[in-house]
Amino acid sequence: MVATQQQEDPHIWRDLIARHRQTLDNALESVRTRVNWSPYSEDYRTYGKSGKNGGAGDEGETQFRRLLGRPWDVAQPGRDGTVGPGPDAGGERSPYGPELGISYPHSDPDALLPAMTAAIPAWRDAGPEVRAAVCVEILHRINMRSPEFTYAAMHTSGHNPVMAFHAGAVHAQDRGLEAVAHAYAEQTRLPAAFRWRKPLGDGTAINLDKTFTAVPLGIALVVAGSVFPAWNSYAGLFASLATGNAVLVKPHPAAVLPLALTVSVAREALGDAGFAPDLVCLAAEHPGERLAASLATRPEIRIVDYAGGRDFGDWLTGNARQARVHTATSAVNTLLVESTADYRDMLANLAFSVSLYSGQLCTSPQNVLIPRAGIATDEGHKTYDQVVDDLGAALGDLLADDAAAAAVLGALLGPAVLARVERAMSGALGKVAAPTRAVRHPEHPDAVIRTPVLVRLDAARPADRATLLSEWLGPVVFAVAVGSPAEGIDLMAHTNRTCGALSVGVYTRSRDVEEAAEKACLDTGVMLSVNLMGNWYISQSAVYSDLHGTALNPAANSVHCDAAFVAGRFRFVGVRRYGGAA
Amino acid sequence: MVATQQQEDPHIWRDLIARHRQTLDNALESVRTRVNWSPYSEDYRTYGKSGKNGGAGDEGETQFRRLLGRPWDVAQPGRDGTVGPGPDAGGERSPYGPELGISYPHSDPDALLPAMTAAIPAWRDAGPEVRAAVCVEILHRINMRSPEFTYAAMHTSGHNPVMAFHAGAVHAQDRGLEAVAHAYAEQTRLPAAFRWRKPLGDGTAINLDKTFTAVPLGIALVVAGSVFPAWNSYAGLFASLATGNAVLVKPHPAAVLPLALTVSVAREALGDAGFAPDLVCLAAEHPGERLAASLATRPEIRIVDYAGGRDFGDWLTGNARQARVHTATSAVNTLLVESTADYRDMLANLAFSVSLYSGQLCTSPQNVLIPRAGIATDEGHKTYDQVVDDLGAALGDLLADDAAAAAVLGALLGPAVLARVERAMSGALGKVAAPTRAVRHPEHPDAVIRTPVLVRLDAARPADRATLLSEWLGPVVFAVAVGSPAEGIDLMAHTNRTCGALSVGVYTRSRDVEEAAEKACLDTGVMLSVNLMGNWYISQSAVYSDLHGTALNPAANSVHCDAAFVAGRFRFVGVRRYGGAA
Repeated sequence: MVATQQQEDPHIWRDLIARHRQTLDNALESVRTRVNWSPYSEDYRTYGKSGKNGGAGDEGETQFRRLLGRPWDVAQPGRDGTVGPGPDAGGERSPYGPELGISYPHSDPDALLPAMTAAIPAWRDAGPEVRAAVCVEILHRINMRSPEFTYAAMHTSGHNPVMAFHAGAVHAQDRGLEAVAHAYAEQTRLPAAFRWRKPLGDGTAINLDKTFTAVPLGIALVVAGSVFPAWNSYAGLFASLATGNAVLVKPHPAAVLPLALTVSVAREALGDAGFAPDLVCLAAEHPGERLAASLATRPEIRIVDYAGGRDFGDWLTGNARQARVHTATSAVNTLLVESTADYRDMLANLAFSVSLYSGQLCTSPQNVLIPRAGIATDEGHKTYDQVVDDLGAALGDLLADDAAAAAVLGALLGPAVLARVERAMSGALGKVAAPTRAVRHPEHPDAVIRTPVLVRLDAARPADRATLLSEWLGPVVFAVAVGSPAEGIDLMAHTNRTCGALSVGVYTRSRDVEEAAEKACLDTGVMLSVNLMGNWYISQSAVYSDLHGTALNPAANSVHCDAAFVAGRFRFVGVRRYGGAA
Repeated sequence: MVATQQQEDPHIWRDLIARHRQTLDNALESVRTRVNWSPYSEDYRTYGKSGKNGGAGDEGETQFRRLLGRPWDVAQPGRDGTVGPGPDAGGERSPYGPELGISYPHSDPDALLPAMTAAIPAWRDAGPEVRAAVCVEILHRINMRSPEFTYAAMHTSGHNPVMAFHAGAVHAQDRGLEAVAHAYAEQTRLPAAFRWRKPLGDGTAINLDKTFTAVPLGIALVVAGSVFPAWNSYAGLFASLATGNAVLVKPHPAAVLPLALTVSVAREALGDAGFAPDLVCLAAEHPGERLAASLATRPEIRIVDYAGGRDFGDWLTGNARQARVHTATSAVNTLLVESTADYRDMLANLAFSVSLYSGQLCTSPQNVLIPRAGIATDEGHKTYDQVVDDLGAALGDLLADDAAAAAVLGALLGPAVLARVERAMSGALGKVAAPTRAVRHPEHPDAVIRTPVLVRLDAARPADRATLLSEWLGPVVFAVAVGSPAEGIDLMAHTNRTCGALSVGVYTRSRDVEEAAEKACLDTGVMLSVNLMGNWYISQSAVYSDLHGTALNPAANSVHCDAAFVAGRFRFVGVRRYGGAA
């Protein structure tokens, strides 16, 4: 084997492996069995004092406030400018109101990328187990700072506190660990060294001593979005890093902080383990710079992970031809209500699903299909109008109180989301069944918060079909009348195929309808949820258990997290040494 | 689960699984341990009478002769014409001389592709184990007809009999089985069904009953080459089929027969197992039709596997954007001779490596690098000139007798190969160190057979560098003088990076040189062979043990056969059913 850095720092690496091997093994077991498991506590109190925001606590707020109004220092090579503070200079403003006032270094790619490339061989030569241990250490350090990440998520993506704690901290950490486990599993599927022996006809045999070494592709670029910058990018970041690549993180200009924090923790942990911190770098951009496009087409970039709009996703797959491009773009998620044995529970589950984070999740249901003739329920037959009215009433009940509503809804991401709500409210799309309501946040009076507007559409009307076949990210929900359950399933399949979808659902007591919905989902490649009730919602994806995306429809060309997501990020190089014939 | 065909033919499927499960399990174990193993005997006598051609026997010849001069019938949908017989109509001519006189049906893609698509759901619903068993059955039936496939390979690709039996029959079957094993392993990594249980704070838990179903992408197109139509395409064919896709095989016009045989065996086995034979179809083309290009860009085609020239490989990756494109194109393989403890064995091994199949393998060494100052050996110091002369003499010894030479060399693939030999002989490239010789085949006087021409180049001369950095497929070998071993390793790395390489080698007694060569191969992503002697050659790749290609250099963007080669050919679709809270 090639001389490695292993001789230099074996005690640090042994210690890291000893500390994290059990976590890695548990993760490996969980991604195999898909059982519920996580090393990262979902109890906010684990991380410090319980807070006033129903999850986000005082300590996190204190740590977060220390970050505001000052430069963020990441000592990367090639600094050639400053991004932010202030929106005109590319700085961030909280969806809850205030500017963050943080500035970030801007780096010259011609200096940054060579430094990252130079860092790769020692990382490659350390091998999969050391890399996995260092990656788990990074995630452990991020986990210890979960309250800070929670506040960073609230004040960049507008999450409510619980969602910020989940998607901005612990569940994102799970996504990262899941990717590390897959990366480790893929890299250790071949024996590192073995003797191959082929008998010859004369009683002797040829012997070859063979080795397989996992070799990374080069530098991986993560182009993050503003909606779930951590949850959506940790899978790609850690899959690439654990397979030996260097990772350059290009955050969305509206949500730099969560990834700046991530990058700095990763750099510290890498440095402490004896590796070049430049294995993970941040690429903050000047306003209008289009840095993602210019970086993604550099020859040094061999992997791109992207979450965001479809147009730029298509541009990346068409233009970043030197790289493997993983995209997660837009989705239109459908839910068919055919019948139910628990009408009230169904309405409550539905109301929460469409309200959570103001319907801004990529897995939020948008089109609720209801047969024009109504549905059978445990409370008797319900007409289409009754179901729509009852769903409106359930929304009203859930979101009646401003403080409670704000805790479910979070803040709107930006003016484009508000414009969609206003357009839906205008009646131009269809008759408003339940209007939106402006919610006043008890602490952040400037936050723009809206309850969902429920609009009636009819699948038989061409204009309505055009409406429901577009993505309306945000608190806009369509109650779509369909001619029959079969017509509803056909519309669901058509939507999956043409718009892309990540999570669809059906409420039914009919075995035939359930089977038809399942067949449609296999044919069009979308995860199906059947009769969800209680505290589990169609928009939720359980890390280690559910697969997020299928790569079978336009919503995404890769899956968080399966073997295919990881397997192409490295390759094995074999060496065969003649071992004599005997 | 969706209703499947399983209810219709469970006894056939049970029987197939019972017959082939052990073979599948052995293959799964072998791709994990990488030990020498195969269910397909390398002893030609296993398959019938031992023959006159040093491997290819009478029975194969009889079966082959029955195929000649008549239409080949594959009853596919949408027949709209005939390809062949006769070269003007797209028929095949043997590199050993005679026209085959076989005609093939031509199909209208607008009829063929919908029929193939319609066949997929039942194949998908049968599940991974039934698909694996059917695929192993196809391979078993092909294996039983190995002598016929041997003759088909000789008289399309010009292989010598032993190579035709290996690469055209048993080793190609190994390649297919290896892919089936990987496909089965990937598709069974998630539990088919399980209950997920997430504890809630109140002592109860949410229960979800989850399933994962492997779903194929659609139709896979195999665009085969003329050099190793079976060996190079069985991996893609069986990887796609075993993961639930339909497979359309587009053979090279010069080598249709091996794949027509393959397709007909597959169709019979599929039909016998209760599936639509149209899951595997043949796409023979009219002369000049450019059928591969028009098929590869059809929306129904979701996977392409291609082996052939770099230009069309690049065209495919640039234009078949709706598909996952796997390519294996051209390679320039380098071998550095730095020192050796077995000078005579090394020369014999080298001479055989460059002679086998007239250097027409994609793994044949082309550039033999030798330090200008000579090398240390067990016979004392040898100058560059001595090494070149001794290699020329070793070639002369190996290929002195016409019959023995023909059995190593096989026939030249076509006029382009001969033109390269003649150019090398002209002295225009460099001084001829050992001339080519025309070999007369004892039975096929029209066969064009040439021994390798050995040409001296010097890496310090720009014109020589340009020569050696081009691919000279065929019996053209360059003895390249380099300034030092380090310069040789740099040139090897440069060649790997810019031209692409599949198999490089080094002969050395120096630990430093070996380590430097290994580092260069990790950096540039090429398999390295060290000090090969005896009966194992740099151009050989052991199925189940060696990886063919790395996807890290321009020679190929995929690997035969690793998890990544298979993993993206299907996706999992999950279904979550609410199972109550308790």
